[in-house]
Order: sequence, then structure tokens, then C-alpha cells
Amino acid sequence: MSDTLDTLENITYNEINEGDTATFIRTLSEDDLVLFAAVSGDINPLHLDPEFAANSIFKERIAHGMWSGALISAALATVMPGPGTVYLDQSLSFKRPVKLDDTLTVGLTVLRKEPRNRVVFKCEVTNQNNQKVVTGEAKVIAPTEKVSLYKPTLPKITIEAQN
Amino acid sequence: MSDTLDTLENITYNEINEGDTATFIRTLSEDDLVLFAAVSGDINPLHLDPEFAANSIFKERIAHGMWSGALISAALATVMPGPGTVYLDQSLSFKRPVKLDDTLTVGLTVLRKEPRNRVVFKCEVTNQNNQKVVTGEAKVIAPTEKVSLYKPTLPKITIEAQN
Repeated sequence: MSDTLDTLENITYNEINEGDTATFIRTLSEDDLVLFAAVSGDINPLHLDPEFAANSIFKERIAHGMWSGALISAALATVMPGPGTVYLDQSLSFKRPVKLDDTLTVGLTVLRKEPRNRVVFKCEVTNQNNQKVVTGEAKVIAPTEKVSLYKPTLPKITIEAQN
Repeated sequence: MSDTLDTLENITYNEINEGDTATFIRTLSEDDLVLFAAVSGDINPLHLDPEFAANSIFKERIAHGMWSGALISAALATVMPGPGTVYLDQSLSFKRPVKLDDTLTVGLTVLRKEPRNRVVFKCEVTNQNNQKVVTGEAKVIAPTEKVSLYKPTLPKITIEAQN
């Protein structure tokens, strides 16, 4: 038995059933705003500058919309189906803003299995108040071989204090 | 005249015409792999571990698919229409992997203008060999007021050297 805290174990096409569900949870931190701006190149001050954001219609800094998309992709790649998944298609509808300290839950539900190891998932990202933040569908090629991978340790990332 | 290197100037709904195009260019670095893993939570070794990736079907580390999605969102948020854009919908089809040092160009083309300031864009992400990496469509609410924002400076991000 592998220790699931240290490993990424996949769910193969044969193991997946219509109606199966999985979740993936993350809380938005200030660091996430900076890291997503750096890695995407979207340096809109709405995500980065507390003063600017305070004067916007959102009243405070909000997450990049595609951060929620990134969480959906992480759920598919690491939870269900997990390692070995090939991402084919994703649709996303952005429903409401995400604010600092919001805790998002990505909910995946298997809508249908298709020939050639294709699986279609309903994807719903909800916040801690159970409000829908992003909805969509994903189509993937699910893995056919069972694998259990170690989880790499990320190098330490340091963000210089601002002001 | 504002210096466009230091500012983010938007293109309003009235200024946008069918067929208009814009581009946004980024090159995939090792840092991007680490930062995207950190900010999304997708720590699949395919993106992080050179040895593991060498033994995969891809033969080397590849970008998270949704990194290309993040670049599309950055193009919409910072180039066309730019600041003030509200993201409504995005579809993404993942066509081929992205490898280290690949230079991706996000190409946006205005497919149509719709009532209530809605604009639909064709989105194509191509690599330096002009191969399509990701294709899709985006729907946004374009800004109606012209704005020119300063570009915030990102804090310095340091990634600890590995091993």
C-alpha cells in the first residue's frame, strides 16, 4: 500500500464510472496573485495593487480568472484521472470573482465515458460560500495503466516583500 | 502620449472591429514550470523532474497545458481589449506539448461583436515552428471607457536552486 500523501496514484479508464466525483481544494493567497502574474504575464494592477483594486468595482484584489482554470487542470492531472491523463478540451465560464483567502473547491463529476479512453467531466469550482465561481467541461484521454508516482518536492520560492 | 512600455492601455468596445488582431509572446523557462506547479498545485513530475520526463512519451519536461490558457487570458487582459475587460467564457483545445525554450505566440482575432459590449475572439497559440499548440474561443465584456494604467513592477521572485 502506498502512502497517498506522498504519491500521486491515478484512476484508469477501466476504473472510472459515470457519476464518479473527485475534489481538489486551494485557498487564494497573496503569493498566488504574484506567482500567477509572473508565470502568465498578466500584471493588471487589479490583481497586484491593493490601492488600485480598492478603487475598482471589485473593491479589493481579485484572482486572475484563469487561476481557477489552473486548479481544474491540477485536479484532472493529479486526482482524477491523475498521472498519465492527456488533456484534450476544456470549456470555462467565469461566474464571479475570487478574493484573497477564498477557499475554492474544484468538483469533478464523470459525465460520460467515450470510446478510445475518452472521459468527459463536469467541472465546477465553488467558493467557501458554495457559490459557483467557474463552471465548464473537460475532455481527457484517461490512462489505461495504473501508476503511482512520488510527489516531487517543489523548490522553495521566495517573494521579496513589497512596499 | 503615454509610453506604452510602462502602461497598459485598453481598446474599447467602440474601437474594436471584426477581424482586428493582437499578439502576446512568451518563452517557456524552467522557472515557469516551477511557478505554475506552485500556483496551481499540479506537481506532476512530468513538468518538474528531468529524469522522470526523459522516460515519458514526451522525452523531456513539458509545460502544464493550462499555462497556454493563462497566456491567452493575459493577452485578453493586457493587450486586447486590455484593462477593464470582464472574462465570460473560454474554450481550449490542447493540440500538442510545449517544451522548454519554446516561444509561444498567442494570436487573438475578433470574430464578432455582440450587443451589450460582448466581443468573441478566436484564440490560437502557436509555437516557434508555427505549429498550433492550443486553439479556442473567448467571450468577454469589452471596456467602454478608455483607460491607461501603469504597469506594476512585480516583486522579485527567487527559486531555490535544486539538488
